[in-house]
Amino acid sequence: MASTNEIIRRYSGAELASFIQRVLITSGFSSDNALTIAGLMAEADVNGSDGHGIFRLPAYVKRIRAGGLNVDPHIRIETEKESMALVNGDNTQGHLVMKFCTELAIAKARKSGVAWVGCHHSNHAGPASLYARMPLAHDMIGLYVAVGNANHLPPWGGIEMLLSTNPIAIAVPALDENPIILDMATTVAAYGKVKTAAQRGETMPEGWMVDRNGDPLTDPNKAEDGFLLPIGGPKGYGLALMFGLLAGTLNGAAFGKNVVDFNKDFKTTTNTGQFIVAIDISAFADVETFKGNVDNIIRTMKASPTMPGVTDILLPGERSHGIRQDREKHGVPMPEGLFRSLEELAVETGVPGLGE
Amino acid sequence: MASTNEIIRRYSGAELASFIQRVLITSGFSSDNALTIAGLMAEADVNGSDGHGIFRLPAYVKRIRAGGLNVDPHIRIETEKESMALVNGDNTQGHLVMKFCTELAIAKARKSGVAWVGCHHSNHAGPASLYARMPLAHDMIGLYVAVGNANHLPPWGGIEMLLSTNPIAIAVPALDENPIILDMATTVAAYGKVKTAAQRGETMPEGWMVDRNGDPLTDPNKAEDGFLLPIGGPKGYGLALMFGLLAGTLNGAAFGKNVVDFNKDFKTTTNTGQFIVAIDISAFADVETFKGNVDNIIRTMKASPTMPGVTDILLPGERSHGIRQDREKHGVPMPEGLFRSLEELAVETGVPGLGE
Repeated sequence: MASTNEIIRRYSGAELASFIQRVLITSGFSSDNALTIAGLMAEADVNGSDGHGIFRLPAYVKRIRAGGLNVDPHIRIETEKESMALVNGDNTQGHLVMKFCTELAIAKARKSGVAWVGCHHSNHAGPASLYARMPLAHDMIGLYVAVGNANHLPPWGGIEMLLSTNPIAIAVPALDENPIILDMATTVAAYGKVKTAAQRGETMPEGWMVDRNGDPLTDPNKAEDGFLLPIGGPKGYGLALMFGLLAGTLNGAAFGKNVVDFNKDFKTTTNTGQFIVAIDISAFADVETFKGNVDNIIRTMKASPTMPGVTDILLPGERSHGIRQDREKHGVPMPEGLFRSLEELAVETGVPGLGE
Repeated sequence: MASTNEIIRRYSGAELASFIQRVLITSGFSSDNALTIAGLMAEADVNGSDGHGIFRLPAYVKRIRAGGLNVDPHIRIETEKESMALVNGDNTQGHLVMKFCTELAIAKARKSGVAWVGCHHSNHAGPASLYARMPLAHDMIGLYVAVGNANHLPPWGGIEMLLSTNPIAIAVPALDENPIILDMATTVAAYGKVKTAAQRGETMPEGWMVDRNGDPLTDPNKAEDGFLLPIGGPKGYGLALMFGLLAGTLNGAAFGKNVVDFNKDFKTTTNTGQFIVAIDISAFADVETFKGNVDNIIRTMKASPTMPGVTDILLPGERSHGIRQDREKHGVPMPEGLFRSLEELAVETGVPGLGE
C-alpha cells in the first residue's frame, strides 16, 4: 500500500478547485455553489488538512448519487434574534451551510458585538478551521464546533459508541505574527490517523485506542474492535458530550444514537449540526492594541526555553501556516493513490481529469 | 498529616455561609457583598468543590490584609453592545464580579438570544461551575472560562510555566434528569490533587506531571521541579492558550507572563479575567422539547453497556449532584485541619467561630 502514498506531482489550489467544481457541477450543483464548495475544499488542502479536502470528493459524490444529499438547496434562517440565528441547511453540502452561517454571524457580530449561529440539516463541511478562520479578515475571533459524522467513542467507562470526535476550532488574529488557529478533535488521535497507521503497517502508540476491556489497542487493523480515547479521559468525554449538545441537540440536529455513520451509510440524511461564534474585537478593545498583545503572547511562548530534544515551541496553527506558504508557492502534493481515485472519478462523471 | 483530613463533624451550608459572612464583614466588605460571596462559597462546598469553597477563606483574608484586594468596589460596565459587555471588576473578589457579569449576560441573552460578558480586574471566583450553573434557572445554557490564578504549565515542549490550568464549565438543563454540568481544568490533574497526594504521602500516577526533561514525575514532593501535563498533550496546551486569550487578553486582563501567582503574592493586583456566555434555549428551540431531548441523551448514555469492572456511566456533574443531595441533608464534612485553620481565622478576625 505504501506506494500509493508516493507523491507523483503537485497541483495548485486553483487547479484542484477547478477540478472539484467540474465534478460538482456534473453532480447537479449550480456553478456558483460548486465554486464555493470547491474553493473551500481546495483551501483545506492548501492549509494542510489533507484528510479534509479533495480527498473527500469521491465520498461526497457517492452520497449525492445515493440520494443522501440535496444539490439544489434553499438554505434559510429558521429563527433569529439580534445575536443568534438557527439555520436550516436543507441537507446540502456543509461547506455551503457553514459559509452561510459564518457570514451571517459576522454581520450580526458587527452590530451586536458577539453572534452565535447554529444549523441543522447540514453535512460534512471539511476541517473545522475553515470556518473559525473566516471572521479573522473582519478583525473578529472565530469559534466553531461540529458534531462529527461517525461515532467513534463511548461515554467514559462504556463500550457503545455514542459519541463522535466532535471537533472545536478557535482562531484569533495577531498583528505582525500569523493568527493563532486551534483545530482539534476531542480524542487523542483522529480516526484518520488510525487508518493511516493501518495503511502503513505501523503499530499505534498506547493511548490512542482501547479494546472493549479497556486494555490498550495498538494494532490498527483491529480498530473495529476498539474505541478512540478522549483527551484527558473523562474530561475529553465531557467535552465531546457538551459540544454535541451545543452543536447538535440545541440546533435540532443529530447527536448520540441518531448520528449517521457517513462512511457506511450514504443515503440517510445525516442532519449534521454545527455552530459558529463570531466575536468582534472592536467591541471589547482597541483592535491594534489587542492584536499587538497577541503578538507579544506568541513571541513570549516562542522565546521560552525548551525541553531537551525540542527545537521549537509551536503555536496552534503554526505547522499549517508553514504548509500553506509552501503549497501556495509549490502546489499541493498529490499522492498516487488519491490521484488514481480522482482520475476514476473524472471518468465516471465525464469531466476532464486533473491531468498529469 | 493524614489525621488532619479526618472529618470531625458536618456543617450546613447556611452555617458555613454565616461564618464566612462574619469574617468578610470584619475584613471590610459591606454586609450585602459579604452575604453574596459567602453564599457562593458555601454553595461551592455543598456542590462538592472542596478545594474552592470555605477552604479558600484564609487565603482570601490574607490577600485583603496585604492590600491586594478591594473590599469597597464599584463594579461597572466599561463598554457594551446588544449581546456583550466588558466589565471592570475594580479588583474585588471574583464572586462579586462574576455574579454581576452572569446576571448581565442572562438579561442580555433574554433580549438578543445569546450574550457574552467578560471582565478584567476580577479575582479568584471559586469553582467554574458556580457561574455556568446560574443561567440554568432561566432555561439558559451557561458557558464559563477563566484564566487560572497561577501558571502551572509551559507551552508544549517548553519548560517555562507561562500557562495556567484555565478551566471551562458548561451547564445544560434537562427536564426530569439533573442538569449536565462539566467543570474541568485543561490539565490532566488539577494542582490541588498534587497537593493532596503530597499530604497523604502517595505517589502520583504517570501522566499527571513531567520534570524538566519531559520524564514522568511521580513524587508529589518534587512538584516544584516539574509541570502539570495538559489533556491530550498539545491539544490541552492549545485549549489553555485559547481560553487564556479569550478570558484574559480579549478582556484586557492578565495572561501569560503577567499572571500573578496568588499562592505566593498576596499584594499585587491579579487583574484576573473571566467570561460567561448565556444562551437562551427558547431562541433556538421549544424549551420543553430541548430539555426532553437532553433527558434522552442522559438516559441513552446511562443505559449503555459498560467495560468490565465499571458499574455506572457517569454524566458530567453527576458525582456533584450526589454529593449535593447528601450535603443538603447531612451537611458539609469538615476535616480537622481545615476546621483548625478556620478557628484560628475566627480568633484573628475577632468573630465567633463555627462552633463544635
